[in-house]
Amino acid sequence: MNTYETRAARIMQRIQELATISENEQGVTRTFGTPAFLAGRALVQRWMEAAGLAVRVDSIGNLRARFVSPNPAAKTFVLASHIDTVVNAGKFDGPLGVLLGLDMLEQLVQQQAQLPFHIELIAFSDEEGVRYHTTYLGSKVVTGAFDQSLLHRRDAKGITLADAITTMGGNVEQLASDAMPAADWLGYFEVHIEQGPVLWERDIPVAVVTAIAGQQRVEVTFRGMAGHAGTVPMNMRQDALAGVAEFVLAVEHFGLVHKETIVATVGKLDIRNAASNVIPGEVTCSLDLRSADPTRLASAYDALRAQTEAIARRRNLGLHWDLIQYTAPITCDAGLNNLLAQAITESGYEVVPLVSGAGHDAVPISAVSRATMLFVRCFKGISHNPLENVEERDLAATLQVVDRFLSSVISF
Amino acid sequence: MNTYETRAARIMQRIQELATISENEQGVTRTFGTPAFLAGRALVQRWMEAAGLAVRVDSIGNLRARFVSPNPAAKTFVLASHIDTVVNAGKFDGPLGVLLGLDMLEQLVQQQAQLPFHIELIAFSDEEGVRYHTTYLGSKVVTGAFDQSLLHRRDAKGITLADAITTMGGNVEQLASDAMPAADWLGYFEVHIEQGPVLWERDIPVAVVTAIAGQQRVEVTFRGMAGHAGTVPMNMRQDALAGVAEFVLAVEHFGLVHKETIVATVGKLDIRNAASNVIPGEVTCSLDLRSADPTRLASAYDALRAQTEAIARRRNLGLHWDLIQYTAPITCDAGLNNLLAQAITESGYEVVPLVSGAGHDAVPISAVSRATMLFVRCFKGISHNPLENVEERDLAATLQVVDRFLSSVISF
Repeated sequence: MNTYETRAARIMQRIQELATISENEQGVTRTFGTPAFLAGRALVQRWMEAAGLAVRVDSIGNLRARFVSPNPAAKTFVLASHIDTVVNAGKFDGPLGVLLGLDMLEQLVQQQAQLPFHIELIAFSDEEGVRYHTTYLGSKVVTGAFDQSLLHRRDAKGITLADAITTMGGNVEQLASDAMPAADWLGYFEVHIEQGPVLWERDIPVAVVTAIAGQQRVEVTFRGMAGHAGTVPMNMRQDALAGVAEFVLAVEHFGLVHKETIVATVGKLDIRNAASNVIPGEVTCSLDLRSADPTRLASAYDALRAQTEAIARRRNLGLHWDLIQYTAPITCDAGLNNLLAQAITESGYEVVPLVSGAGHDAVPISAVSRATMLFVRCFKGISHNPLENVEERDLAATLQVVDRFLSSVISF
Repeated sequence: MNTYETRAARIMQRIQELATISENEQGVTRTFGTPAFLAGRALVQRWMEAAGLAVRVDSIGNLRARFVSPNPAAKTFVLASHIDTVVNAGKFDGPLGVLLGLDMLEQLVQQQAQLPFHIELIAFSDEEGVRYHTTYLGSKVVTGAFDQSLLHRRDAKGITLADAITTMGGNVEQLASDAMPAADWLGYFEVHIEQGPVLWERDIPVAVVTAIAGQQRVEVTFRGMAGHAGTVPMNMRQDALAGVAEFVLAVEHFGLVHKETIVATVGKLDIRNAASNVIPGEVTCSLDLRSADPTRLASAYDALRAQTEAIARRRNLGLHWDLIQYTAPITCDAGLNNLLAQAITESGYEVVPLVSGAGHDAVPISAVSRATMLFVRCFKGISHNPLENVEERDLAATLQVVDRFLSSVISF
């Protein structure tokens, strides 16, 4: 059997090779169904087949490789991640989980292991949702939650999702039949980079994901009175930007006070008809509020809305508050997490329970199967950026933990 | 002699008629040298000629009408304002002063008045500086302060200022010789809308301008660390927007504390690569700081810079502070203002001394002549906007004050 270091080096080589396949040269870009996506998927498919696995491409373009149990009636344990990317992405967000899973199955093939369950390794075709502004296309087909009305949606070039699926060799008619029946799921496990700085700061290679945060996305508009910056006295102003400044600090303060359970961010801000010599009359900004706890998420939303209304009232500003998106939080499976924590401890690392603030395929999958994730430390927490990086020694540590974890799942 | 009401009605008719000449239909747009500008100027020139005045168009396109004293060696008192506009302007900013001045000279012609000084009524061709991003082209030629290097500057279509002057029938060679010698100036007087809400709020038709504020324009950039809004914990963030929010409130607070002498405005704000799910990593904003008192302006600048540096330091943010523009304040002539205050009192109005926060042609002219201005109440202080409005009864009140003022200048 190969050492973890040797295996980590090979995974890293594959990640590097896959990253050379991109729609552009700035970073890695392989959005759903594009030639670069198809070329990248073909490379992964060749690796899966070379490992001796039975592989098929399903109707939405997911790669699905199976390591089959001698018991045909056995349930299926799914290892997965995605191989589509955002624009100018890094090399690890998605491919890490797929290629680490492939390495696991290669070991099982070499060992001629006989497992009490099937393992399906899935490379999802669309998790990021860049092309059709809707996430989890791949995993929603696998869980049977695909929304047929999305087929009419058009990308920036006017191509419908239905046409994109057909063009890439998929089959719109078979989307429903490609779902894995709920009764067949034994569990779902995904390895992914953290995309945050906690492991980097704490100098620990991996973390157990206990939940995936829910999200409220709000568009907030303050309306005051535009005016000449030189001629309207300070005490006669209705400055919409000053109101927004209070809002930004209130959001930050609320997030800091509740930092164990909440993140709150103002990421966009637009002053209407902005000019350096004009007092801002109308400003629109975003609020992104996330928590793993649905009750805390709701109460944070209510508290911040009340604070915002008070700011507008005190400043005599108009306020428009518009909830644009709500995604419910999910909790990762406690049983699987116990096994994962045990594997981490046995590998000699501290168990760090983390909430994922970013969404993952585990969100739709948790509707049909117990599911969990393992986060891997990434450079300074940077992701969705060509600077995204994972160190090879952390891949070796991850392999050790996942090996232990899978063994315990097998014997459980 | 006509009543002030009749005269005000005719001035208003002319303002309305001139406003129909525009580059577009949203508001009034007559930027320097355009066909709409030339058509508007031709209309004003016809009115001046019909009043019996000798009129010439000078080399930068100013209209210069003279009411000549029997004493050829007399000095010249200048009544002026501008007939160019910003984009989507109102009807009054500029034309009010020119057409009110024209009405004054018409009265003098009708009375066959013999004055101890010449009066020159000037309609400046460029005060707003929209087309070449440099203000006071017209008045700088009249004072001899025109900067020849500006002739190479290009507008948005690539046309140099030299070519624009030639195309509109001006003469680049004569710009220097069109200056009025410093020894010839008796004084400068301009009637202009307030562009602020003080007179509106206090229900008074006119105000004496005591000074024109100086201005410091700064570009401020805060640099933190961009990150995923869902994955970076609140206490590990370097949010550039939160720093800017503190800056905006510090600017507002400083302005309020020093509201008698300062206005301070953040009018522009740009988040680099803004997205609702990304913590802002770099934010640039503007600071516009004005005061009539050069010492207070300088100390406000220093104080706000120190506060901004403290905010950046406390938040561990990078800071770039770039002074983009400095214009020194000017003080209006005390002697002329005494006469103006007396005229206002005798007309039955309270004397309100105001500092102009906006720039005016009186700024370059104060370098060669004593100068002052009279502000006229405008609707809610709104200017540079099609909603800009002046009531006819305020024009009548202005005429009464200006009549008294000119009489006192004559007898002084």
